[in-house]
Amino acid sequence: MKRLLIIGIGAGDPDHLTIQAAKAIAATDVFFVIGKGEEKDDLVRLRRDLIEEHGRPPYRIVEGRDPERDRTADAYAEAVEDWRARRAALYERMIDDSLADGETGAFLVWGDPGVYDSTLAILDRLPFPFEVVPGISAVSALTARHRTTLTSVARPVHITTGRRLAEEGPTADDMVVMLDARCAFSGLDDFHIYWGAYLGTDDEILVEGPVGEVGDRIRELRAEARARKGWIMDTYLLRRRA
Amino acid sequence: MKRLLIIGIGAGDPDHLTIQAAKAIAATDVFFVIGKGEEKDDLVRLRRDLIEEHGRPPYRIVEGRDPERDRTADAYAEAVEDWRARRAALYERMIDDSLADGETGAFLVWGDPGVYDSTLAILDRLPFPFEVVPGISAVSALTARHRTTLTSVARPVHITTGRRLAEEGPTADDMVVMLDARCAFSGLDDFHIYWGAYLGTDDEILVEGPVGEVGDRIRELRAEARARKGWIMDTYLLRRRA
Ligand SMILES: C[S@@+](CC[C@H](N)C(=O)[O-])C[C@H]1O[C@@H](n2cnc3c(N)ncnc32)[C@H](O)[C@@H]1O
Ligand SMILES: C[S@@+](CC[C@H](N)C(=O)[O-])C[C@H]1O[C@@H](n2cnc3c(N)ncnc32)[C@H](O)[C@@H]1O
Repeated sequence: MKRLLIIGIGAGDPDHLTIQAAKAIAATDVFFVIGKGEEKDDLVRLRRDLIEEHGRPPYRIVEGRDPERDRTADAYAEAVEDWRARRAALYERMIDDSLADGETGAFLVWGDPGVYDSTLAILDRLPFPFEVVPGISAVSALTARHRTTLTSVARPVHITTGRRLAEEGPTADDMVVMLDARCAFSGLDDFHIYWGAYLGTDDEILVEGPVGEVGDRIRELRAEARARKGWIMDTYLLRRRA
Repeated sequence: MKRLLIIGIGAGDPDHLTIQAAKAIAATDVFFVIGKGEEKDDLVRLRRDLIEEHGRPPYRIVEGRDPERDRTADAYAEAVEDWRARRAALYERMIDDSLADGETGAFLVWGDPGVYDSTLAILDRLPFPFEVVPGISAVSALTARHRTTLTSVARPVHITTGRRLAEEGPTADDMVVMLDARCAFSGLDDFHIYWGAYLGTDDEILVEGPVGEVGDRIRELRAEARARKGWIMDTYLLRRRA
């Protein structure tokens, strides 16, 4: 009797929003927004702008405070699991307290809700039915901005994390890397890299070229941008050179 | 002096269109549409509906006839290469003949232009600048409709083709398979499958479960639907069972 929507809002550009997502925002009574601490204020701002533009009053915005995740833990998956359990409890409390029967609540999720995001797995633990609205992921935004494709003819593509790439090395001729805090592309000189930071926003940076030629520049730009803004989001495609 | 747009239109639902794509359609003078023979008329229809809804007259629609691809060739990549060369010649002729300097031409691409689509690689051969507008891929549509994620915590996902899966077997715990004409999931009883056909359309079919339990049903539904409509588009996610 409480209906929940997980709405993908695209990866930074307000115009990434789909018509389906705009309609879902218009159908929402309560938006659940989770603050992530000040460094991510830009991300919260995009959500508020989209609500203001597409929401249909009267609606309410209910804010929660993100439980801290232990980012120093060795066992990444266990740390995530623990954090998810606490977040599920938080969501359940927010929904119980703020959403009436017959109303629709929504979570606005960065990019596509299916791509390295916890919201869906967390709501899966709760006793409320939900629907998912797909969104433009950072992967789609990256390849579009570089005017290249994700996939090569008849070849697979691997989407992975910086941590995995650092541990395993390259596993395919075409790879997309997300959640990389440490420039795990370094040394992969057989590859061409298509790198993008803050995709779709005014701060967007794009660099492309053989890793051996542009790797240093990416590392510098990344460090500078991160220092200037306090946080960074970047993604890259690695394609083995012919 | 001729500007081209490659616009992702989403994977079947007209509401998958992004605001950016709607604006791009509104900015287009000439739409280039390629017919694929009658079996794909539904796909051409979605494009025409989107143009009618979001295009800003006066605009023109220029139709080309798809060069036949040799689908019996053993060397898939070579057959694709040959077909792409012929298609590039066709596009160049259409653009030369129908788009004036200073005008904007557009190709509306199913799903996301980066995912197993040739338009970008073809335009790359031609002497015209182009921009790419990302779209909701069948991958995003599939996971959203099944209310599941593409990626598992801290794990990679492989996106591949039916042909590759048939040749190589499973390469990861999480895999998305596209372009599969032969149900290459058969026998992969360690996996859970999330299958979707005609996603986002009125004909959408969703089946989910352990491959060993639902595989037969998927094969039947697929054969029936294909016989009824004359063509099918289906995609699935395989996730290794715990
Ligand atoms: C927690 S994941 C969320 C991904 C999101 N659900 C999506 O579909 O893009 C965060 C990672 O996504 C990537 N990312 C998200 N937005 C981005 C952007 N605007 N520019 C570059 N990378 C981005 C980065 O790799 C970042 O580490
Ligand atoms: C040539 S590829 C194009 C993919 C497209 N660019 C995208 O982003 O989804 C065609 C394949 O995409 C998948 N596909 C596209 N649209 C689909 C839909 N509506 N439902 C199921 N599968 C779809 C199927 O696997 C099909 O064989």
